[in-house]
Amino acid sequence: MELKHYMKQICHQIDGALADLLPAKEQRPTQLHQAMHYSVFAGGKRIRPILMAASCEAVGGDIEQVISAACAMEMIHTYSLIHDDLPAMDDDDFRRGLPTNHKVYGEATAILAGDALLTQAFITLAKPNPTIDATTQQRVLEIMAQAAGAAGMVGGQIVDMEAEGQTPNLETVDYIHRHKTGALILAAIQCGALLGGADRKTFKDLTCFGESAGLAFQIADDILDIIGDQDQLGKDIGSDQQRGKATYPAVLGLEVSQKKMEELHQQSLNSLSSYGAKAEPLRQISAYIINRST
Amino acid sequence: MELKHYMKQICHQIDGALADLLPAKEQRPTQLHQAMHYSVFAGGKRIRPILMAASCEAVGGDIEQVISAACAMEMIHTYSLIHDDLPAMDDDDFRRGLPTNHKVYGEATAILAGDALLTQAFITLAKPNPTIDATTQQRVLEIMAQAAGAAGMVGGQIVDMEAEGQTPNLETVDYIHRHKTGALILAAIQCGALLGGADRKTFKDLTCFGESAGLAFQIADDILDIIGDQDQLGKDIGSDQQRGKATYPAVLGLEVSQKKMEELHQQSLNSLSSYGAKAEPLRQISAYIINRST
Repeated sequence: MELKHYMKQICHQIDGALADLLPAKEQRPTQLHQAMHYSVFAGGKRIRPILMAASCEAVGGDIEQVISAACAMEMIHTYSLIHDDLPAMDDDDFRRGLPTNHKVYGEATAILAGDALLTQAFITLAKPNPTIDATTQQRVLEIMAQAAGAAGMVGGQIVDMEAEGQTPNLETVDYIHRHKTGALILAAIQCGALLGGADRKTFKDLTCFGESAGLAFQIADDILDIIGDQDQLGKDIGSDQQRGKATYPAVLGLEVSQKKMEELHQQSLNSLSSYGAKAEPLRQISAYIINRST
Repeated sequence: MELKHYMKQICHQIDGALADLLPAKEQRPTQLHQAMHYSVFAGGKRIRPILMAASCEAVGGDIEQVISAACAMEMIHTYSLIHDDLPAMDDDDFRRGLPTNHKVYGEATAILAGDALLTQAFITLAKPNPTIDATTQQRVLEIMAQAAGAAGMVGGQIVDMEAEGQTPNLETVDYIHRHKTGALILAAIQCGALLGGADRKTFKDLTCFGESAGLAFQIADDILDIIGDQDQLGKDIGSDQQRGKATYPAVLGLEVSQKKMEELHQQSLNSLSSYGAKAEPLRQISAYIINRST
């Protein structure tokens, strides 16, 4: 299996489905719909959808089963980026080398585009789907909502903001990372497993994988902010440190953080030890996550 | 039936359930949870939950069946008020006589509290409910999400903002009102009917009721902004006109708007003509909506 090809293929499927699932740009209110499309198609790497697809395959499922849930996940991820970038939050002008949503459409529209994307995710998840049984669909929706809300991503974001400029401690950094980024990554993997037909044991294994991989992903992000390539990342390097953000390197130093990330990666692989070739995409993505340069 | 008593009783039930369904204020992240509680318990009249309960009763259902969906509806309504009040949107300092969410907690927390409330609504709607069959639960969630999103409330809000300061026309005012306020009111009535066990014909009747009542509600709001009592409303009178908001009175004048509102009220009553005593609460609330002073 070639990972690059695998990722590209899923991205292509997801992008096509996203274009169908979002309201048409030409339809009233056009400004809102354009703002939604702008950020959804602003060069995201679709890591969460790809993880969901690979998780589904790891338990013997077919990628087709995750497409709409994976799109919903990407809508939730995109809404969170739009709101995080707002002047009242992280006040970022660029993301992936492009002007952020509020820089193009203004703050009010950016807030509403985020709101509409979050809601569109649940419209997508609630649509009757003949290939998925009602109980699984309900569980997927519940897992995603929990991961996105006060006990998940939004909770992580507020603790992240509160911690800014404070002396960070490991417990707080851990809380932020497990909630702000980890919750949605874990949910992607859990939902992929459920939609692929996982039984209780398999679901538990994939959950272990998702917990380690989610935390590793965020530590890799922290490390990239220090040693990454500004042009490749499409954003400023060193911004975490400038802002006094609570990161792993800020608490543990760069070297220990790298070691921690590699340990987590190893842990994530261990969770998949009995899954053979089916889990190969998931293993390779786990490696990609910690070795990526963007 | 005494309407005041009926409304008070449902408010009491809804408030109790909301307190249980929101994350505890003492729990981390406390700032976020406190901000969520603050606006949910800031003196809202619970019009949408009451309409949902009365709609459920009109089709022969039991109020118990709507409680959690009615709470979800109120969370969605509250999130929309928090975001509407933000400096980048309507920039309001007071609502119902209290400082708005961002005035108390700051803009960033207000944005996140709104995001978390919207998400909490879907967590609430997705929770397995042994008294509601899975298909009804899925339909209720889908109706609410559609009503809240780009094709509903958020769409109405953006067209409302775009129209500010422009010469308003009836088509635009109608679009704004049917989407910004009407969609959620209609959804409350439709979900009440579904949760009460409505068949196809009953659902259609209640939909007709909801369309008329929803528009009448917003025209009443426009009129109150001109002739209401500032102290009772807890907000400034005449603010729509000052901002050049697209309202019915701005397009049709006060007198014609009042006539239109009364016609819609009569239409809403006609939709319930065959429903006898069961629909009495719904009829009385419809009258209350257009005669209220706050």
